[in-house]
Amino acid sequence: MPLATESKTKNEGNKTSMKKYVYFFGNGKAEGTKDQRILLGGKGANLAEMTNLGIPVPPGFTITTVTCKEFYALGEKWPTGLEEEIAANLKQLEEATGKKFGSKDNPLLVSVRSGASVSLPGMMDTILNLGINDEAVAGMIRKSGNERFAWDAYRRFIQMFGNVVLEMEHHGFEHILQDKKKKLKVTEDTKLTAADLKDLVAQYKAYVKKFTKKDFPQNAQDQLKLACNAVFKSWNNDRAITYRNLSKIPHDLGTGVNVQSMVFGNMGDTSGTGVAFTRDPGTGEHKFFGEYLMNAQGEDVVAGIRTPNPISSLKSTMPDAYSQLETIYQKLEKHFRDMQDLEFTIEDRKLYLLQTRNGKRSAAAAVKIACDMVKEGLITKDEAILRVAPEQLDQLLHPTIDTKVKHKILAKGLPASPGAAVGQVVFNAEDAIEWSEEKGRKVILVRRETSPEDVGGMDAAEGILTATGGMTSHAAVVARGMGKCCIAGCGAIHIDGSGKFFTVTSHGQTVKVREGDLLTLNGSTGEVILGETKLVEPELGSDFKQFMSWADAVRKLKIRTNADTPADAKIARDFGAEGIGLCRTEHMFFGENRLKSMREMILAENEAERIKALKKLAPLQKGDFKGIFKAMAGLPVTIRLLDPPLHEFLPKGEKELKKVAKDLKVSVKELHKKVESLHEVNPMLGHRGCRLAITYPEMYKMQVEAIFEAACELAKEGLKVVPEVMIPLVGILGELTFTKKDAIEVAEAVMARRKTKIEYLVGTMIEIPRAALIADEIAQEAAFFSFGTNDLTQMAFGFSRDDIGKFLPFYIEKGLLKVDPFVSLDQHGVGKLIEMAVSKGRSVKPDLKVGICGEHGGDPSSIEFCHKVGLNYVSCSPYRVPIARLAAAQAVLKEKKK
Amino acid sequence: MPLATESKTKNEGNKTSMKKYVYFFGNGKAEGTKDQRILLGGKGANLAEMTNLGIPVPPGFTITTVTCKEFYALGEKWPTGLEEEIAANLKQLEEATGKKFGSKDNPLLVSVRSGASVSLPGMMDTILNLGINDEAVAGMIRKSGNERFAWDAYRRFIQMFGNVVLEMEHHGFEHILQDKKKKLKVTEDTKLTAADLKDLVAQYKAYVKKFTKKDFPQNAQDQLKLACNAVFKSWNNDRAITYRNLSKIPHDLGTGVNVQSMVFGNMGDTSGTGVAFTRDPGTGEHKFFGEYLMNAQGEDVVAGIRTPNPISSLKSTMPDAYSQLETIYQKLEKHFRDMQDLEFTIEDRKLYLLQTRNGKRSAAAAVKIACDMVKEGLITKDEAILRVAPEQLDQLLHPTIDTKVKHKILAKGLPASPGAAVGQVVFNAEDAIEWSEEKGRKVILVRRETSPEDVGGMDAAEGILTATGGMTSHAAVVARGMGKCCIAGCGAIHIDGSGKFFTVTSHGQTVKVREGDLLTLNGSTGEVILGETKLVEPELGSDFKQFMSWADAVRKLKIRTNADTPADAKIARDFGAEGIGLCRTEHMFFGENRLKSMREMILAENEAERIKALKKLAPLQKGDFKGIFKAMAGLPVTIRLLDPPLHEFLPKGEKELKKVAKDLKVSVKELHKKVESLHEVNPMLGHRGCRLAITYPEMYKMQVEAIFEAACELAKEGLKVVPEVMIPLVGILGELTFTKKDAIEVAEAVMARRKTKIEYLVGTMIEIPRAALIADEIAQEAAFFSFGTNDLTQMAFGFSRDDIGKFLPFYIEKGLLKVDPFVSLDQHGVGKLIEMAVSKGRSVKPDLKVGICGEHGGDPSSIEFCHKVGLNYVSCSPYRVPIARLAAAQAVLKEKKK
Repeated sequence: MPLATESKTKNEGNKTSMKKYVYFFGNGKAEGTKDQRILLGGKGANLAEMTNLGIPVPPGFTITTVTCKEFYALGEKWPTGLEEEIAANLKQLEEATGKKFGSKDNPLLVSVRSGASVSLPGMMDTILNLGINDEAVAGMIRKSGNERFAWDAYRRFIQMFGNVVLEMEHHGFEHILQDKKKKLKVTEDTKLTAADLKDLVAQYKAYVKKFTKKDFPQNAQDQLKLACNAVFKSWNNDRAITYRNLSKIPHDLGTGVNVQSMVFGNMGDTSGTGVAFTRDPGTGEHKFFGEYLMNAQGEDVVAGIRTPNPISSLKSTMPDAYSQLETIYQKLEKHFRDMQDLEFTIEDRKLYLLQTRNGKRSAAAAVKIACDMVKEGLITKDEAILRVAPEQLDQLLHPTIDTKVKHKILAKGLPASPGAAVGQVVFNAEDAIEWSEEKGRKVILVRRETSPEDVGGMDAAEGILTATGGMTSHAAVVARGMGKCCIAGCGAIHIDGSGKFFTVTSHGQTVKVREGDLLTLNGSTGEVILGETKLVEPELGSDFKQFMSWADAVRKLKIRTNADTPADAKIARDFGAEGIGLCRTEHMFFGENRLKSMREMILAENEAERIKALKKLAPLQKGDFKGIFKAMAGLPVTIRLLDPPLHEFLPKGEKELKKVAKDLKVSVKELHKKVESLHEVNPMLGHRGCRLAITYPEMYKMQVEAIFEAACELAKEGLKVVPEVMIPLVGILGELTFTKKDAIEVAEAVMARRKTKIEYLVGTMIEIPRAALIADEIAQEAAFFSFGTNDLTQMAFGFSRDDIGKFLPFYIEKGLLKVDPFVSLDQHGVGKLIEMAVSKGRSVKPDLKVGICGEHGGDPSSIEFCHKVGLNYVSCSPYRVPIARLAAAQAVLKEKKK
Repeated sequence: MPLATESKTKNEGNKTSMKKYVYFFGNGKAEGTKDQRILLGGKGANLAEMTNLGIPVPPGFTITTVTCKEFYALGEKWPTGLEEEIAANLKQLEEATGKKFGSKDNPLLVSVRSGASVSLPGMMDTILNLGINDEAVAGMIRKSGNERFAWDAYRRFIQMFGNVVLEMEHHGFEHILQDKKKKLKVTEDTKLTAADLKDLVAQYKAYVKKFTKKDFPQNAQDQLKLACNAVFKSWNNDRAITYRNLSKIPHDLGTGVNVQSMVFGNMGDTSGTGVAFTRDPGTGEHKFFGEYLMNAQGEDVVAGIRTPNPISSLKSTMPDAYSQLETIYQKLEKHFRDMQDLEFTIEDRKLYLLQTRNGKRSAAAAVKIACDMVKEGLITKDEAILRVAPEQLDQLLHPTIDTKVKHKILAKGLPASPGAAVGQVVFNAEDAIEWSEEKGRKVILVRRETSPEDVGGMDAAEGILTATGGMTSHAAVVARGMGKCCIAGCGAIHIDGSGKFFTVTSHGQTVKVREGDLLTLNGSTGEVILGETKLVEPELGSDFKQFMSWADAVRKLKIRTNADTPADAKIARDFGAEGIGLCRTEHMFFGENRLKSMREMILAENEAERIKALKKLAPLQKGDFKGIFKAMAGLPVTIRLLDPPLHEFLPKGEKELKKVAKDLKVSVKELHKKVESLHEVNPMLGHRGCRLAITYPEMYKMQVEAIFEAACELAKEGLKVVPEVMIPLVGILGELTFTKKDAIEVAEAVMARRKTKIEYLVGTMIEIPRAALIADEIAQEAAFFSFGTNDLTQMAFGFSRDDIGKFLPFYIEKGLLKVDPFVSLDQHGVGKLIEMAVSKGRSVKPDLKVGICGEHGGDPSSIEFCHKVGLNYVSCSPYRVPIARLAAAQAVLKEKKK
């Protein structure tokens, strides 16, 4: 189609010639609006909006984010036309301010700041006072009559420019400043005189020349160009890339550049500067909140050199400015329909707004503000639902560390399970149980990595710290399931399990932490803190309940939980779970007596012996199920039959092996042989799941019998029990038909014997890629599908989640993956398998019940995907149930928007 | 659509009423033909055909295979109408023979035999002489005047019927017979008199009564019904199921039942019976081949009690019968257009044919017969190509055990790599090398399992025997690649590596095999034989060459080879390989010097040290590539960059660890730490393939540099070199773009430096399921796809091929899988991923080159699939190249047929 191509080329040509790189704002009129944040960045868009609203904003202009992208496309060069546009806008700015850029008499000074469409805190520092030079400083003195102010402005400018643009270390300048103060025997900057500051400027310039081999740039135009380039480049500095990786922000947005005429909060005692929130960002309380400093520039408030005053005191200090500010903040909140975070400066009693944006807030504040704004009629319920990030709710559900206190961080690992924990260090599960149960102490379990045998110890501990393993390691998954704080993969700690201590070496210093020492874990940040720290307990108020009820009314997905114990089931139900989507049965076999019987079964030479050992387990297993069915009475309970390979139940070390051999009355050699014969090269892909039931059908039969015995007994007591038997690891149709036939036979036999009829389902996990590929066949036999996305992700990627620690960080760092696919579902790849399975399954059985029970069931973006592909429910760990409820509601609203 | 349903029901009703269960043949006219083998079974169809051809066949009738299926569908009951049809056919048979079934005066005796549409040897024994009883035997005596013959027939009948129908042990009858002979002091059955046989019949009947608590059935109708049921049931006996599993025959075909009037080869010296082939089944020579016994019934020829005579001697013994037989065999071969396997009986000088079928033959015979028949104008070249099973060719390519000699089997493992080997037992790779290279001895390497470090030892050995691992274990794959005999997973042997012996215990007896003892391996059967055995070397004659040239002219797929050394490449090229589809580079690092440098690289603390170690490897690697490029000059060579995880290169045991630490001048502790830090829970899914190059890009860079240095040097010498660089384990687009960018940069730099231009490609393996799911994206970056079906199968099924030994046999046994998916591609599941990847890839790049380099590249049915989905080539181990060439040709012809 040559015509189309031609027209496209033409169009592009037009586009280039029509491109506008710079948007002006000032004197009550701006070229941009708040809806152009993609083009202008958040800061630029809102400066334009404020200007149009008639709010006093120092005039300036915004260079678009598109310019930044072209800058990179051209190999870090300015696109044609940009220079001219900036010149024109500078001219307009000079007219608006009545000052002249680069003038020695009446110099126009500007600030230069980055501003992307999403907030990237700490991407680059602001440059203030740009445009000053040796001549302009003299003009400023003449014009303001304030010599000290002028030299201070110059000094600050060189320092900021040197640091941000010339890439000189901040502490070099600080060093010169401190030296000066020492010599003068003063401690505060404010004690420096004009002469002192003038001398500092000279010293700074000399320092710059030494470092850059060039004079400090005196030409204002050069300063501006260099500063703009520095902002463009800051988009791709390490800090920014890391932040974007962590926050899942795309790397191709680019940043805008805001050039704005300076106003000065440091012109004396009738000037000042501050930051404020339209509501309390910590509690959500509806009151003006913030702080300010008189006679200061913006950076002073943030730097913490002087202690700022609470905003309320401004009312008495400068009543006019305060009342004006009050009117403005109310106007802004109404206009933006959200809590605002403001920056303002008062220059000689005149108030200017420098920035407004939606304010960051704690989870509690987010919920309260959303609820209040609905009540105030400011936003709708749907909008309220979208105002709280689901992930944020996590804060509300766990005890947290008091962030008002500063802590010494000993080491940092992965924030594997949120919340905080304080306790005494122990190094194995037995000690954890003994210290906790017998001695009544709070303990932190520290392990290289955990295994199913540690579960008892994990349960007894306040928190878990592991040296290896990722966000979905055994420790992480189990801890999240327990709602227990966990830091995983903390590579900095070196554990000597037998010596019962660990060491951390940093900056050449080695700290040794012994058994019994106190330790604090912050599972939300991954920080390990030496000693005891005060924790804050969560509270779920009426706002939370109201807010969640709105979400529940909107969502279509059911939310179930992954729970293996009655206690977990109860927590989840209290959090709003509508059933169990995954009850793992393997943890039930790790109790003291059970493990022995389990091992007897594994060591059995034939079916008869195996059945004998299983008979000992059956009544205990029945008890487990009764407890869970009771806790979930009336709601469906999906029970996954035994999944892990048998070797997980056998002893590991030589010492334990000997002990177990004695217990089981077998020779050490024999036990050794068994352990060896069960060893697998890749246990993840080995003899587990339904594969065990193909070789030893009696195992699943015992479990199904226990399920239905439990169900029948409770049914007789009048309880409604809804068991869903789930066969794990099916990849071949025959695996399902074989195990399902057994399950149905056993279930029917129990019900006939008990003369009770119970509605039940037999379904399967879809966690093997092949199962997704033949889902139409499998659907003919399965009453439901439940996606085991952990295993599905492992196999689709060929990633062992126990081993990815060696390369996944590189993948994230180098941008090969945007996010750990075990944390957030890989919708692009693994998602295709899920979509395929859903559509193939429903092509055969249109009302097939489909859910997800992997770790992803608690991840908001994965939940959105599950909604989109038409799943019936997601199942997640108890403490993530509210998160999932909210995410499911947001998924509906986001879909509606489109 | 109620109408449709109604009409379907009606139709089914009609079908039932129109069903015909029994087909008659006799007196020159049969209801069936040879084309009805699906319905009548092979035996029945050919009996009908022979009848219609006017060949003397004893009349009879065939009960269809559909009847058998209905028998099972009805819960092992006869369908309505069958009884009546059999009665009608019996009546017709009585008319044709002039005898009466169940008559005491002129009894009609029949044989009852199974006959499915595919041959299932040993499924069930034949029942002869059915219809005889206490009264009929008297009638037979009266009619034949041969009392001994009649009692012998009765005796044989009871024995066969007891064994086959009444499920009594054969040896119970044998015991009675032997007792009798002992008492009479005779050794041969023929020495038993009529009275002796009569007494035996009485004893047999008593034995039957004791066992069944019932009298031996006297009613001929009852006998027939019981016999038919036994045939039906034999379809699902263990032997039959196992055979079908092994031969990949579906389980739902059912068997026919052939009821045929008896003719007797044991009526005296003018009677006899024999089997014959129309050509020599061992060599293919065009001459009548077979043997016969006079005065014998069929079973006697097979049983081997008497030594049969060569068929040629029949010419002088019974010239008329022989000449008639000669005419018949020529007629049959012409008619069936294939070599026939005949059974005949001469009853009192009258010749009868009892069976004809296409004869089984050796590979050599198959090739020769196919070629000869084309020359004779009997079949076309296309037909000839389809006459040889590709798998069979394997026999021709390896030395084999002389099957004429009987061997004592010590143990049996998996036939992992065909051929045979004789040598002295050694227990580790070093000994294998030392014994073979220094002492010049032939050795058999016996290992628990092998690892890449054993490759040198495997190469030095004649054959490999492992105790664990499956058909695709390391030992199996490497051995097949080397064309070296291997038996894997021989669980019966217990190895004491330090004691340098292994033991095998069977039937309570333990055999100890020590280092240096002679052992023979039959890799084609998995048999381990104690001591030395004579081997037969293969020879590829002109027939073979001609035959293969026909196949080559037909096939569309190119055939490449998997070869890592110049020697392998040469073998493959001689076998017809058209390039290398997979050159693994990891084996190249296991040489003495190389391993040290490799380990230095692994232990390196930083990139600089790694590069230093890699620089030592670079020239050696270049040498490797030069050798391979030379051997494959003019043909494409696909080189896979390093794939296995680094820990495979580190020492395993404590002793070796100490030695290596000393060599590398590091502390044992440090080395330990490194080994530990590289340990992986699931190495298969770990830090390997391109993942290594993401973290350590210098490794692939060194390899690519070596490839292009080698290529440039050879190009300057005038050789045509066609390198294809292949990136393994890609699952994420970024992995390919990242590594490809490096590869191209290095390649271009080398070529620029060397001032040489070489055509090359950079492509990728598709072996991670996710890669198949996003193949459209990957195709944008890849010049070719090569399916790594081993890993793709592992990940799609979630099967670790090192660990499936524990459950896969159950899967096959229970029919959950028809065949090991590592041997024959799972077209239904894994195949879907392949089809998806091909179509997605070609949607973006229509001329994308796509091949397969997994083990499946040498499997005929997988090759057929590869042809079907439009692959460009398959790549297989050198010794399978001819097999692949033939399979590829057959794929074309089979497609054409459809």
